[in-house]
Amino acid sequence: MTTSLVAVDWGTTNCRAFRIGAGGQILEKRANAMGILAVKNANFSGALADLARDWIDTPAAPPVLMCGMIGSAQGWVEAPYVHLPAGLDELGAHLATAPDPRRAIHVVPGLRGMGAAGPDVMRGEETQIVGTGIADGVICLPGTHSKWAVIEGGRIVRFITFMTGEVFSILRRNSILGRLMVEAPHDPAAFARGLVRCQAAGGLLHQLFTVRTAGLLEGLSKEAAPSFLSGLLIGHEMAAVKEQLAPKSATVVGAGALAQNYAIAMNVAGIEAGFVPGEDASARGLYAVARAAGLVR
Amino acid sequence: MTTSLVAVDWGTTNCRAFRIGAGGQILEKRANAMGILAVKNANFSGALADLARDWIDTPAAPPVLMCGMIGSAQGWVEAPYVHLPAGLDELGAHLATAPDPRRAIHVVPGLRGMGAAGPDVMRGEETQIVGTGIADGVICLPGTHSKWAVIEGGRIVRFITFMTGEVFSILRRNSILGRLMVEAPHDPAAFARGLVRCQAAGGLLHQLFTVRTAGLLEGLSKEAAPSFLSGLLIGHEMAAVKEQLAPKSATVVGAGALAQNYAIAMNVAGIEAGFVPGEDASARGLYAVARAAGLVR
Repeated sequence: MTTSLVAVDWGTTNCRAFRIGAGGQILEKRANAMGILAVKNANFSGALADLARDWIDTPAAPPVLMCGMIGSAQGWVEAPYVHLPAGLDELGAHLATAPDPRRAIHVVPGLRGMGAAGPDVMRGEETQIVGTGIADGVICLPGTHSKWAVIEGGRIVRFITFMTGEVFSILRRNSILGRLMVEAPHDPAAFARGLVRCQAAGGLLHQLFTVRTAGLLEGLSKEAAPSFLSGLLIGHEMAAVKEQLAPKSATVVGAGALAQNYAIAMNVAGIEAGFVPGEDASARGLYAVARAAGLVR
Repeated sequence: MTTSLVAVDWGTTNCRAFRIGAGGQILEKRANAMGILAVKNANFSGALADLARDWIDTPAAPPVLMCGMIGSAQGWVEAPYVHLPAGLDELGAHLATAPDPRRAIHVVPGLRGMGAAGPDVMRGEETQIVGTGIADGVICLPGTHSKWAVIEGGRIVRFITFMTGEVFSILRRNSILGRLMVEAPHDPAAFARGLVRCQAAGGLLHQLFTVRTAGLLEGLSKEAAPSFLSGLLIGHEMAAVKEQLAPKSATVVGAGALAQNYAIAMNVAGIEAGFVPGEDASARGLYAVARAAGLVR
């Protein structure tokens, strides 16, 4: 089938490419680990060709639209940050163009807004968000840097970032708390215990130390400690979300264990959780932005 | 002069030994990097002898008293955690004895209490605290794991631990925020900016992300970013201290840049800061505990 768009979600650690048909259906997809940090000598043109030359270098020369950290200062071209509120029209109107000698390569801009404590930015998530097709509501994208976005009339009007996933990861790998942990399957009871612990006083920097004392004095096992820590951190994120956005319900983009854990934390916080699949949200978003920009009809 | 006590503060990364005279004065001191993690095959007896054999193996055979992580499960002997409230008498009454074949080696117990969110423990800091000689007031020991202790009538009645220093260190070294930083002298203005930022909403996991956006969008330099992060974290600690302990004043154990920064953060939080020297506080504390235990007269 004819390719109407080559859509590329190019992040820090991965590159995912989609060949999209005339009606927006995903015809093929490919991915590799050539995230922008892995590309040598800024040869992004070569890295893209390695992954998708046979889709792009054809007589029809379909348009190429990318999103993610490829549009950052460390990427191929620095795409702007568009101010909120922003939806498909604003994203489509501010595409950047990568300096590729042979093809027209477009890049979706990032977004900037005011978080709860200062300026906030996203790059890549805006495309996933519009890819969900949700026109009104609160969307949660869990991950290394979790994003919560408020959508009104098809436009993102506010969002807040939390470094929850990254803080978990470095505490697990690099802190004294990690020495009290071993690899083990997720422990739902310990996760719930962390959710409860985070409702106590003393702030996060104190509560983190109780991961240690729970092991010393309260019988928390080395197997259960990572789940306890995860509950503590996700619970802190949820408390801030409640305070800032007070949503009755929110849609988690994604599936699997992390999305389930977020849903449980939301439930404990009194937020009703729904789900939309995350896997191809960026491909659907790239197609929608391409239409808004007139790259495809 | 005669040795009345060999006092050893033996922590995770360092070992510091003091030869103490009949009136409690420090006659000599030595230190090396043989913290308990560096001692091979649990040969603590040999490591102690390497540092202080000529003080200990004499005809007079002075008593040896140690404090710190040497009394942990990873140390030479697991000393108990004594429950609060505790002062010199309680510490002196619960000394542990290390299994040394040739000498009597005593170890000060740790303390346990209820922090703000769960059980809390200290090991080593209790000796520094009694070494300050402060009988009533709030004491702050800044560091990897900061401790705040409330002293009444010469006994520690409450304390709270914050993982502030360790969280700073792993964010600086291991997170994406560290990539936005370079080594540079402390920047007092950026530190103050962090103290102000932490008073905003959204919680710590969100505010940490603003270290990144402050660099992208608010002109925070790579040189200033570490000081901003430090202000943010110490400010969070201070907010929890205010909420939990509401002290009008507190005494910082220590000197130098970190103690100064804590004093500034306390000032911004409306807590009057005093100082006592930290360097020999553990030696003075070990001597006081030794007297309470009857090891010296």
